Amino acid sequence: MNSPMLQKLVELRREFHKCAESGWLEFETTIKIITYLDKLGLEVRYGKTIHGKRQGLPSQEKMDAHKKLKEHLKCDFDVEEIFQGYTGAIGILDTKTPGPTIALRFDIDANDIMEAQENHRPAKEGFSSEHKNMMHACGHDGHIAIGLATAQYIVSRKNDLKGKVIFIFQPAEEGVRGAKSIVQSGILDRVNYILSGHIGFMGKENEIICGVGGFLATSKLDVYFKGQSAHAGAYPEKGRNALLAAANCTINLHTLTQYSGGMSRMNVGTFHAGTARNAVPAEAKIELELRGETQDINEDLRSRVEGMIEASAKMYGVSCEIVEMGSAPAYKYEKNDFSTYVVKLLEAQGFSVSEGASMGASEDVTYLFQEVEKNGGKALYLIFGTALSAPHHHPSFDFSEEVLEASVRCYSKILLNLLMKQEAAVSK
Amino acid sequence: MNSPMLQKLVELRREFHKCAESGWLEFETTIKIITYLDKLGLEVRYGKTIHGKRQGLPSQEKMDAHKKLKEHLKCDFDVEEIFQGYTGAIGILDTKTPGPTIALRFDIDANDIMEAQENHRPAKEGFSSEHKNMMHACGHDGHIAIGLATAQYIVSRKNDLKGKVIFIFQPAEEGVRGAKSIVQSGILDRVNYILSGHIGFMGKENEIICGVGGFLATSKLDVYFKGQSAHAGAYPEKGRNALLAAANCTINLHTLTQYSGGMSRMNVGTFHAGTARNAVPAEAKIELELRGETQDINEDLRSRVEGMIEASAKMYGVSCEIVEMGSAPAYKYEKNDFSTYVVKLLEAQGFSVSEGASMGASEDVTYLFQEVEKNGGKALYLIFGTALSAPHHHPSFDFSEEVLEASVRCYSKILLNLLMKQEAAVSK
Amino acid sequence: MNSPMLQKLVELRREFHKCAESGWLEFETTIKIITYLDKLGLEVRYGKTIHGKRQGLPSQEKMDAHKKLKEHLKCDFDVEEIFQGYTGAIGILDTKTPGPTIALRFDIDANDIMEAQENHRPAKEGFSSEHKNMMHACGHDGHIAIGLATAQYIVSRKNDLKGKVIFIFQPAEEGVRGAKSIVQSGILDRVNYILSGHIGFMGKENEIICGVGGFLATSKLDVYFKGQSAHAGAYPEKGRNALLAAANCTINLHTLTQYSGGMSRMNVGTFHAGTARNAVPAEAKIELELRGETQDINEDLRSRVEGMIEASAKMYGVSCEIVEMGSAPAYKYEKNDFSTYVVKLLEAQGFSVSEGASMGASEDVTYLFQEVEKNGGKALYLIFGTALSAPHHHPSFDFSEEVLEASVRCYSKILLNLLMKQEAAVSK
Amino acid sequence: MNSPMLQKLVELRREFHKCAESGWLEFETTIKIITYLDKLGLEVRYGKTIHGKRQGLPSQEKMDAHKKLKEHLKCDFDVEEIFQGYTGAIGILDTKTPGPTIALRFDIDANDIMEAQENHRPAKEGFSSEHKNMMHACGHDGHIAIGLATAQYIVSRKNDLKGKVIFIFQPAEEGVRGAKSIVQSGILDRVNYILSGHIGFMGKENEIICGVGGFLATSKLDVYFKGQSAHAGAYPEKGRNALLAAANCTINLHTLTQYSGGMSRMNVGTFHAGTARNAVPAEAKIELELRGETQDINEDLRSRVEGMIEASAKMYGVSCEIVEMGSAPAYKYEKNDFSTYVVKLLEAQGFSVSEGASMGASEDVTYLFQEVEKNGGKALYLIFGTALSAPHHHPSFDFSEEVLEASVRCYSKILLNLLMKQEAAVSK
Repeated sequence: MNSPMLQKLVELRREFHKCAESGWLEFETTIKIITYLDKLGLEVRYGKTIHGKRQGLPSQEKMDAHKKLKEHLKCDFDVEEIFQGYTGAIGILDTKTPGPTIALRFDIDANDIMEAQENHRPAKEGFSSEHKNMMHACGHDGHIAIGLATAQYIVSRKNDLKGKVIFIFQPAEEGVRGAKSIVQSGILDRVNYILSGHIGFMGKENEIICGVGGFLATSKLDVYFKGQSAHAGAYPEKGRNALLAAANCTINLHTLTQYSGGMSRMNVGTFHAGTARNAVPAEAKIELELRGETQDINEDLRSRVEGMIEASAKMYGVSCEIVEMGSAPAYKYEKNDFSTYVVKLLEAQGFSVSEGASMGASEDVTYLFQEVEKNGGKALYLIFGTALSAPHHHPSFDFSEEVLEASVRCYSKILLNLLMKQEAAVSK
Repeated sequence: MNSPMLQKLVELRREFHKCAESGWLEFETTIKIITYLDKLGLEVRYGKTIHGKRQGLPSQEKMDAHKKLKEHLKCDFDVEEIFQGYTGAIGILDTKTPGPTIALRFDIDANDIMEAQENHRPAKEGFSSEHKNMMHACGHDGHIAIGLATAQYIVSRKNDLKGKVIFIFQPAEEGVRGAKSIVQSGILDRVNYILSGHIGFMGKENEIICGVGGFLATSKLDVYFKGQSAHAGAYPEKGRNALLAAANCTINLHTLTQYSGGMSRMNVGTFHAGTARNAVPAEAKIELELRGETQDINEDLRSRVEGMIEASAKMYGVSCEIVEMGSAPAYKYEKNDFSTYVVKLLEAQGFSVSEGASMGASEDVTYLFQEVEKNGGKALYLIFGTALSAPHHHPSFDFSEEVLEASVRCYSKILLNLLMKQEAAVSK
Repeated sequence: MNSPMLQKLVELRREFHKCAESGWLEFETTIKIITYLDKLGLEVRYGKTIHGKRQGLPSQEKMDAHKKLKEHLKCDFDVEEIFQGYTGAIGILDTKTPGPTIALRFDIDANDIMEAQENHRPAKEGFSSEHKNMMHACGHDGHIAIGLATAQYIVSRKNDLKGKVIFIFQPAEEGVRGAKSIVQSGILDRVNYILSGHIGFMGKENEIICGVGGFLATSKLDVYFKGQSAHAGAYPEKGRNALLAAANCTINLHTLTQYSGGMSRMNVGTFHAGTARNAVPAEAKIELELRGETQDINEDLRSRVEGMIEASAKMYGVSCEIVEMGSAPAYKYEKNDFSTYVVKLLEAQGFSVSEGASMGASEDVTYLFQEVEKNGGKALYLIFGTALSAPHHHPSFDFSEEVLEASVRCYSKILLNLLMKQEAAVSK
Repeated sequence: MNSPMLQKLVELRREFHKCAESGWLEFETTIKIITYLDKLGLEVRYGKTIHGKRQGLPSQEKMDAHKKLKEHLKCDFDVEEIFQGYTGAIGILDTKTPGPTIALRFDIDANDIMEAQENHRPAKEGFSSEHKNMMHACGHDGHIAIGLATAQYIVSRKNDLKGKVIFIFQPAEEGVRGAKSIVQSGILDRVNYILSGHIGFMGKENEIICGVGGFLATSKLDVYFKGQSAHAGAYPEKGRNALLAAANCTINLHTLTQYSGGMSRMNVGTFHAGTARNAVPAEAKIELELRGETQDINEDLRSRVEGMIEASAKMYGVSCEIVEMGSAPAYKYEKNDFSTYVVKLLEAQGFSVSEGASMGASEDVTYLFQEVEKNGGKALYLIFGTALSAPHHHPSFDFSEEVLEASVRCYSKILLNLLMKQEAAVSK
């Protein structure tokens, strides 16, 4: 029998699961979050004010189509900027009592994946995604529920607390697109602690991993090659072949990944070029990503990648445009006072805690962590272990919802301990 | 003021222009042709009986969708095989009097092009294509009209004639896909003369070019590469990269075009691979064509191309499948008794005739010509010059319809002269 | 029994065969030619005065080594410039009587080939090349003999002649390196006729082919790539890989040969890069050539080739240098009054003459022909057919020496007919 | 003032420095070592008996030329097999008293490098290499001296010792070629301890690093591509282009180095192809190496490399041959009882000892270590720090000769401590 909190969490999670919306299209998702935070009495910020320069926006057609679907949504605040893709929301609880400022970050976007129907609980229990080709296949629906419930609990205890809590509901984590923009808004300028986490991954059921690093620096680039078409039989010499330029570029990019200082990665993941068998192809587009175990490797690699792309276009007399679609810095976890403090705290609550893990992948929360640490603050990433029905990003991905309650309890405990007024602590 | 024949031709041409259907989807087109030929009293053949092995069929989805559009069409003959893509029709006039057998070939398919609306006569005068992304942009609508009107005229003179006339309405000329199948049906086994032609191209308005060659041999191939996906950051070594195999294949294919015996051509016209930026791409498809000034060059090139494709797949440990989507042999025009005879005949009729031209492109009528010549027959290709509003295959392509009447008169004159019974000739 | 002229020709040819010297190293060859022409009483020019900018010089080491071999040669004229590679010589017979100016061009260089000893007449009869890795494998030793003997004969008839004859003994035809330099000297400025020819090739024994064209335009380029070395295991990222840049350049260069206006050719013939298995290679050199059936194709191709080379170096962050080592324009033979005149003249002498042939290769005499025709003069290329023991450029190449006398007779006859004073013609 | 031992060591080292001989050509070096060991009274083995299958032999021409230089050397044992490249020698001291068997390995080959003369002590003090293009640029001359002096000392103490000592003087360490062959001879079958080491590298002057790992697994391959030549202008289609096959192979090999399990490396270090600018190149040779942080990575990479090479030859219709020129397994150092024991022992002698280091390169001693550990024995690698005049493999490489005595003292101390009979230990 579920606790009332878990019942509430499950209800929330499933509501967001149904309206799964991918990066920069989280229109309904954002409106729901704002409404919820607003009801809790938090100061809520959203729209352009919480953004700098956004990366990796979907095409205007895709944005317009999704807007058309959602513009009937009624609410008593101005949603125009949200419909322009300024998604996400930030809720602030300011106790007005001097104390530390703590930020929590929850990512809210879904994946561009068509959700499985067969043998899949969301289908069986009626909470499948309503949007074709969008699905919460990474658990961010759970993250939203955790964030909202944590905010609700903290608000209920606000009189006992000092300092400030900033609940960041970040859009477009998939493709590492949203974090940089949020950081640029300046919201993290005076933050002392930042916490974030993820359900699933390498965490065993009921295990909390405290202190995760090994996030690879990464850049996601789209490259457009533009040449000149010509009839391939009649006037081959009049063409300037964008397809050959892109193909040659692609192969050679993959030769750049040997670094003595650590791992690096290169992947051209998609390639689309040409319109007809008998025409010299005038256009090509490739989508690629690169990664580095350190920031230096990623930066050096990126500079060589960009140089190689531009030169490879010139080889075939075509032009090229490189568009950054996403990025994240590297982040290495090192055991420190704060992490040790949290480990002990959670163990004291009866959680099964392990310390330190390496992600071996990329996450744009690293922009936020970097910013906070730059200003002298502390950052901590947690994994909330749970049973998964399929790997992350799989059409049949689902998780055991008990993890939601454990996650709320972890975050709440850490917040309370850092923010409790002395008298409250005593009185408790 | 148009002649009644031209009025009829324009009406027919525009009817077919409206129901533009691309290769192997000429369902309504075929039904209309059969109905017309049948009314003329010709023996009509269609469906599987006029086909061998077809090349370059559209996807089953595309065929099903087009069938759905057309299956309501009523007619009193069995159209099931037509809806399976056994399109085209053959009308036979057998005078039962001994004499030569003459085949005429008319291609009937449209292009996969969206027809222009602005500044385009079909739009202004209400005969635009009814099918989105299909358009008669090469004048084959005119060819159908010419074929039907020629048949009508020849039928009207049948009592004066000896021998046999075979009117071939061939599907899927675009992409050189339909002719081989028609030849395999055996219809050309005892043909003494074959005529075909094209409106437009290098022909000046009102000019008839008699004797066209320089058709390049060609092969159209689709290649599918299949590898193994893997997370590009976490397990790059588990992937088998179909995109890299295809990219490398593509570049190297383009190094094969140096032949001492004549021109050759290679073009990889389209390239589509991969599904996500962060996954090692497991699938790639390329569409290519090769050409040779001679049959030998094309065959040698093709054998090297196929070997290179297979080896390039092996380089990356992926598999590949090569599908022939179309083909045509080379055809070189050489002045001969028959062509000289026709030139004189047409000049005597007052036509402005020039002799001999080189196409520098591919046309699958060369399969039919080759077959007839192999059996000792004669072949002749004509260009019927006309004013064009835009180049062939352009969304704004249109032609001056007067050319239709001139074309019918040419074909009719040649047929009459070859088939006239002596007594009829005298009485005339 | 050989005629005295043939005896003399064989002796001369074998003398030059023995001292075979390849392009720009014709030190002894040039000294012998000068000495011979001087004895005949011709005005002789040589050294810098007969050259503009030379292409494709051998390395300084090679020049120095060959100079060391030859500097003991005694002669009573200044040979310093010859030893600097200003090889070749020009002999001028000026009759001082007004009349046409005729140039004859003979190429004098040997090939960088080691001459065969077994079953090879030069070895058997004691006139093998004295220079290891240099051999007259294209018959230019014969050309020198023909040129000297023709000069001797013409000098003997000088009192009967008007006008001027310029005997050009051109260095470095192999690799099409020497002609451009000679043309730049201005020697051809007022030439009315130019004749050149070649023994062997497609000419049948005793046949004279009069009027040869089909010379392809060509450019010979050396490319040097310079990067940065690094230990390939320890610091791969510190290297800038010249070998990969050159390899990638090479493959892509070979994709550029499709032209609608005629044949084109691309060949990277040699590739040398790297010094050690475990070092990122810092240097690479490729030797390539391109050709075009027309001048336009060759020029367009060359401009794309140079752009591609430079961009391919940039792809790998290396530098490159492109050095032109040789070049020749295209030359197309078209039947004309002069060629018809010569054909008739030679036929009247009892020669077996055929008119017009296509070379399908490159020869830098085309620079000289182009220059003379530009100034309104006439050019003619002849093939002197002869039996060959092996193809041109083969270590066992040799020819039937009777061809030498026939060649001298052809040239002499043409010269006499164009230059004979009327009174002399009468008196004769 | 040098100790007598150091004087002897310097003399020995310089003697071997003068007769620097590279891998499998250590003819004089081997003869000197045998003579020395024999005089000490050790059992000496050499020639075929100490070898299995050798890798990476120099060309027969090179071996013959070096043999010619050395065959006058007089000695009273049979050197025929040595002159066939069965170089190296093994000296065995068997005390006949039961006890452990200890192997020491010293590498003896020089590098294919021309020794610097300017500002280089060997030149100044008269002990430069006598062989052009061969030089002891890695300090193996020092290793030989250390090995011989250690043997001499141990022999002097043999009455106090139990067990057996095997002194292995291994040829052809450069290019990781010699060790595998020695292991195959079976000499290590019953060895309990194996020690080896290197002077220089990351060791600080006077520092001993005890316990070195991080040796990368590696394979060194030569690849020969064989195609078909043809005149590049006249008959390009008749050629089968070995240069293009090798170039394409090379580029694509460099795309294979992304592994999740650790670093990997690929380097095509040299590339030589083609003979003439105007001929389709029929032959190409590349020299490459690959490395893996683990044995699994190296093996997986090698299997993909070989598959890719073979397929890339097929792409161009050419054949290929892959020849293994060298190889070494990975070796990872892990602290253990033996290493701890040695550290304490050396510290007790007053050495400055540090424990554990990672080489980040390859060394074929790992074959010997692997073999001994497979049989339950212990292995230990030491670095003997010393001042270097230039990095290893540099033409100006030299080292501070004091390191020789320290090295002998280290080895001797370890041997004594492991082999001292109890009574001897007591009596001492």
